[in-house]
Amino acid sequence: MRLVSDQSRQREYVREIASKRDDFPQWYTDVILKSEMMDYTPVRGCMVIRPYGYAVWERIQALLDVRLKATGHQNAYFPLFIPEGFLRREIEHFEGFNPEVAWVTHGGGEQLAERLAVRPTSETVICTMYAKWIQSYRDLPVLLNQWCNVVRWERSTRPFLRTTEFLWQEGHTVHRTEEEAEEETLLILDIYKDLIERELAIPIITGRKSEAEKFAGALRTYALEALMTDGQALQAGTSHNLGQHFAKVFEIKFLDADGQLKYPWQTSWAVTTRLLGGLVMVHGDERGLVMPPNVAPVQVVIVPIMPRETRDRVLAAASDIARSLGPDVRVRVDDREEQSPGWKFNEWELRGVPLRLEVGPRDIERDRVVVVRRLDGAKTEVPRGAVSRLVPEMLARLQQEMYAKALVYRDSRTKDVADLSELEDFLAAGGGFARVGWCGGDSCEAEVKQRTGATIRTLANEDPGSRRCLCCAAPAKQVAYMARAY
Amino acid sequence: MRLVSDQSRQREYVREIASKRDDFPQWYTDVILKSEMMDYTPVRGCMVIRPYGYAVWERIQALLDVRLKATGHQNAYFPLFIPEGFLRREIEHFEGFNPEVAWVTHGGGEQLAERLAVRPTSETVICTMYAKWIQSYRDLPVLLNQWCNVVRWERSTRPFLRTTEFLWQEGHTVHRTEEEAEEETLLILDIYKDLIERELAIPIITGRKSEAEKFAGALRTYALEALMTDGQALQAGTSHNLGQHFAKVFEIKFLDADGQLKYPWQTSWAVTTRLLGGLVMVHGDERGLVMPPNVAPVQVVIVPIMPRETRDRVLAAASDIARSLGPDVRVRVDDREEQSPGWKFNEWELRGVPLRLEVGPRDIERDRVVVVRRLDGAKTEVPRGAVSRLVPEMLARLQQEMYAKALVYRDSRTKDVADLSELEDFLAAGGGFARVGWCGGDSCEAEVKQRTGATIRTLANEDPGSRRCLCCAAPAKQVAYMARAY
Repeated sequence: MRLVSDQSRQREYVREIASKRDDFPQWYTDVILKSEMMDYTPVRGCMVIRPYGYAVWERIQALLDVRLKATGHQNAYFPLFIPEGFLRREIEHFEGFNPEVAWVTHGGGEQLAERLAVRPTSETVICTMYAKWIQSYRDLPVLLNQWCNVVRWERSTRPFLRTTEFLWQEGHTVHRTEEEAEEETLLILDIYKDLIERELAIPIITGRKSEAEKFAGALRTYALEALMTDGQALQAGTSHNLGQHFAKVFEIKFLDADGQLKYPWQTSWAVTTRLLGGLVMVHGDERGLVMPPNVAPVQVVIVPIMPRETRDRVLAAASDIARSLGPDVRVRVDDREEQSPGWKFNEWELRGVPLRLEVGPRDIERDRVVVVRRLDGAKTEVPRGAVSRLVPEMLARLQQEMYAKALVYRDSRTKDVADLSELEDFLAAGGGFARVGWCGGDSCEAEVKQRTGATIRTLANEDPGSRRCLCCAAPAKQVAYMARAY
Repeated sequence: MRLVSDQSRQREYVREIASKRDDFPQWYTDVILKSEMMDYTPVRGCMVIRPYGYAVWERIQALLDVRLKATGHQNAYFPLFIPEGFLRREIEHFEGFNPEVAWVTHGGGEQLAERLAVRPTSETVICTMYAKWIQSYRDLPVLLNQWCNVVRWERSTRPFLRTTEFLWQEGHTVHRTEEEAEEETLLILDIYKDLIERELAIPIITGRKSEAEKFAGALRTYALEALMTDGQALQAGTSHNLGQHFAKVFEIKFLDADGQLKYPWQTSWAVTTRLLGGLVMVHGDERGLVMPPNVAPVQVVIVPIMPRETRDRVLAAASDIARSLGPDVRVRVDDREEQSPGWKFNEWELRGVPLRLEVGPRDIERDRVVVVRRLDGAKTEVPRGAVSRLVPEMLARLQQEMYAKALVYRDSRTKDVADLSELEDFLAAGGGFARVGWCGGDSCEAEVKQRTGATIRTLANEDPGSRRCLCCAAPAKQVAYMARAY
């Protein structure tokens, strides 16, 4: 059977992607469409995640799931529908999400007595269960996670980054004390950072959100922020200390060891399919995607160069090399006959496959394989007997180099900025993370946003020293990273 | 950190489950609630799948996913919402599903111009994409699958078996010829049978559905039917040859090698979280769940018997044994101090853990471990040095014995039945699969259903010989398996 991704009809599109330098938004759309990561659908704001994109999501799921389970979290599944009354109970939460809710009003041919929200997030429905399950301090902590879909009715959408429906995991934990909840919130922040830096090769800045930017209903929100190669920031994940807000309105109480009835402390946290968009925007280049080996659906493609008379011999050698790489390397032999090697090179470059191995009759004679790195096009000849040892090493090195390259870029675009006019210049020159002093005032935060489009991405955990607020010039209370963001 | 499933508050419930023999429905509910596989929610017809139940689903997902990928299928993700106009295009399909649809009518604070169905199944939205993606015979076959949630507004619900929302995988494939589509339909039927028999230890009868029982919009439906221990059948999965019905209304066409524009042939197929209900009803006993080792979240529980003075030594030995089992055995050491060993035995029996290992000071002295099988309570003493070799063997044997036991039961409840009065007697005596002759007439099928509650579960692929229709006594055209069903 043939795979969809191996569809062999001639396509001319490989060279048709827009220039990343000249038109970043069009380049992004071209790359994700033409690499077949996703497609648009006729359903408003909803996309299809196609097999090549979904395979990356499956990798991310596996890599995160193992980390969550290793730290004692368990998966569960809660209902898609949330009765309106539940959603209304935590007022900040309701006001934050209500404008984005899709409502089910009819079911089974009848109008419902109460509207059902299609979950925009699941705190409220999960808290109704926690109120039932938690009675004693012995029931704590509760450490649950679910992998599911959520819906937020967005006015304007962009594939992966902002869609009406998206996929995510949402963790929801309950703790005996504030300290434990804070510890969990920061543990998750660390796990996310490790996942995104180590596996997606995307450097991360973590820190608290300002009050204006925090999750609706949370006590404190911590975020992970990454810098895209157009100078805009992407919020790559969030971890919220919910305090006792939800416990109080949902009446989750436990009898502590001291005989007192208390409200527990909660957290919630999520990463979403938007990570796929980040991956594209951080690593992609003029030729298309560049996949970090750890999440690449295909890590190595072997392209046989096969003039008719040597076809069988070359294909046999290619299969042989693929087998020699063992089950830990995701390898594909592109044995399609209708396409030329050059066409295949382009297609797998567009799809960002980290290593391409070329095998032709001359290579077989000389007992060698040509290895080409997607990251920089560097070519090496490798003795055939050394391929199974060298390829995993080259993949590991590529993974590190991709992170290092992204870090150099991020740091080159991170600058101290003193005031609004400097910020405007910085943004006009391409943007990035501006390190600024901030007085802590909502009005300064709002004014900067209104004038420049930049928002506080995170508050740095450091002393502002002699810095002054970039807006009002009062002594700064905090150091903030500001950027325009997706 | 403590796991939810290890919550330590004293519970008296282990002995409180209803008798399976006396009250099967209540027993079922008690077992799944008290083993913490699921819980009811205040959301109409929706349940929570709790970690212990969800872990079984994760096992089933992993075991099926690897089979689907090995046969060339790829995962993707399509939208949750289906505009009403799409759903209406295939009329049989629409009429079949319309009564069960939940409709979204408002989003982002506004009434929608067109209602959106929350997917009851995804043929229609997927076909709109296939019409775009498929142009040439070179694009075929398309072999996609998605793991997701679906919603069907059911009048009466039962956890796992029939809920408003449930989890499933749905495969959707497109082929060049009718033969290929039929081959795929039957390949999937085989994969499902292998999964359910080998991993869930549930014997399966496969066969075609009658016209009355087939999927709305399909050409032919094949089903997998299992027998529960209350004598009722459970449809455990279905595989549909959709023919060209959807291709024609969604205008999916391809240019074949002969230059002709043709409609392709499609299939769709699904298994759902109802398999968890089947697992409970096939294997459970008066003490609770009995988990087949291949899908058991915990395969081996080690219960240390630890009088205070030997506590550390016993715990060390227990951990040591757990480690010696290696990463391929899912093992848990129940080191909770608040519960007695007897209480723990009951709890893990309720949860159906296949093997219990008991380790106490005397066992340590004698260099042995007591191993107890959940299936029949059989106890063996195993030399400590042999545990790591014998436990995997015992698990493998248990898996086979559970299948064999279920097969013996199924066969003992499968009988040839000649006419309606015999069928009534058979059902009154506890039911099971009745093998009957059927004339093929809709009215006889309807009459039997109306009079006895039994339906045609599958049509056997065999010559009816001299059989007569159980209803009208005309010469039979087919042999059918009939049963009352969930």
